[in-house]
Amino acid sequence: MPSRSIQLVLHYDGSRFSGWQRQPADRTVQGVMEAAISRICNEPVTVVGAGRTDAGVHARGQAAGVRVPDKWRAGDLRRAINAILPEDVWVRSAFEMRDDFHPRYSATSRTYRYFVATDAEASSPFRSRTELAWHRLLEVELLSDAAARVRGDHSFRGFAVKGTAPEDDNHRCTVSRAEWSNREGGLQFEIQANRFLHHMVRFLVGTMLDIGSRKRGVNDIATILESEDNSLVSPPAPAHALYLERVEYPSELYLDPK
Amino acid sequence: MPSRSIQLVLHYDGSRFSGWQRQPADRTVQGVMEAAISRICNEPVTVVGAGRTDAGVHARGQAAGVRVPDKWRAGDLRRAINAILPEDVWVRSAFEMRDDFHPRYSATSRTYRYFVATDAEASSPFRSRTELAWHRLLEVELLSDAAARVRGDHSFRGFAVKGTAPEDDNHRCTVSRAEWSNREGGLQFEIQANRFLHHMVRFLVGTMLDIGSRKRGVNDIATILESEDNSLVSPPAPAHALYLERVEYPSELYLDPK
Repeated sequence: MPSRSIQLVLHYDGSRFSGWQRQPADRTVQGVMEAAISRICNEPVTVVGAGRTDAGVHARGQAAGVRVPDKWRAGDLRRAINAILPEDVWVRSAFEMRDDFHPRYSATSRTYRYFVATDAEASSPFRSRTELAWHRLLEVELLSDAAARVRGDHSFRGFAVKGTAPEDDNHRCTVSRAEWSNREGGLQFEIQANRFLHHMVRFLVGTMLDIGSRKRGVNDIATILESEDNSLVSPPAPAHALYLERVEYPSELYLDPK
Repeated sequence: MPSRSIQLVLHYDGSRFSGWQRQPADRTVQGVMEAAISRICNEPVTVVGAGRTDAGVHARGQAAGVRVPDKWRAGDLRRAINAILPEDVWVRSAFEMRDDFHPRYSATSRTYRYFVATDAEASSPFRSRTELAWHRLLEVELLSDAAARVRGDHSFRGFAVKGTAPEDDNHRCTVSRAEWSNREGGLQFEIQANRFLHHMVRFLVGTMLDIGSRKRGVNDIATILESEDNSLVSPPAPAHALYLERVEYPSELYLDPK
């Protein structure tokens, strides 16, 4: 039966999900999406994400691919899915893609953001689910210096969970953007790269926060980048303040105008 | 035993509370606060709120009063309470007040805000708990005209739940501010008055949304204000987009400098 290749752009509040990846017993975003779309299409479907977010990590631009029966146009599918999804996940948009689109392998970049709340209302319930409350010293100049040293093409083995490297044991990532900036109530870190290793953003943020609070020096970035393992890295920053913000694909893979 | 009069300023996410007021079986903000402070002070306490927010209504500035044993200073009490409160309620600040401070009767004004999300991401899980997603026509000029007609001193019997009037059957409120403004992703309504009747803000917003979407005319505000009952009012706007933003007291009631 002919099928249609659809890209879904997802928002989810990661608080009550055990991450992206389907698991037998736990509630995951992939599991919830597959259950919803299978019900709509009346046949089992597989939903493939651009990246596997950890438990607690949020998304405002996770991309996922699914093949559905030909009769489903992207917009109709989007509305049908949103009508039955639970309140913590939402399809922002849906695009019809070329047949050779692959949500993971076709992606040219991913962008993550990390939110640090530094003002007097950092612990408000409206922010504590999605921002890291930080009440200690934090020097933006040191953070920015650290971020600058992350940019470029490096092996990030020192900033990744051991043993979870991609099959080809390739730890190289090209970081096209890594930047701290002020935002209302605190700071945000934005990082864009062609690919990310497991826990890489959280290890980077954890290490940069130690640098920004003068617990370690900014030269440690280079030392960790040159390291053969992750024994020098700081503990990963908490998951709940991390967002997968955007995934990018070559425009020629879109059948619709974006 | 000597006691100290403390004003607590509270944030709470109303989503999982059955409103402010203590109830035998349901989870309420007053109930949670009283349980926490009683445990800390090792004696039963009563926490009195400036206003009784409905189920689902949020607060970023509810004021509450409590009398605690003399040994508790405001700052220490605040930290002790925050250490044991659940994650959806938080004490923003605590002030030592004059003995004749009463959280309800001493208040000179309350301010509420209502958030209407009108952009393409209005239904995102990061906003749907706290904003009303609105995808239809909504004319800001009409909303503003309606708000202007609400300002001033009026009987708001037509915008209140029947039979829940204050004991003295006084329905007059002085609205010192009532204003729609643009905000990122949509609109907000802010209203400040010396007092509010039960469901008054939600009835006002529900009616103004009908006016802004041309379901009824702006002259209806005057008609409802002149009405002897609430039979002409529009349905109340949903609770989940309403915040109690601020409660004000005369500065001489504060023992500490604010």
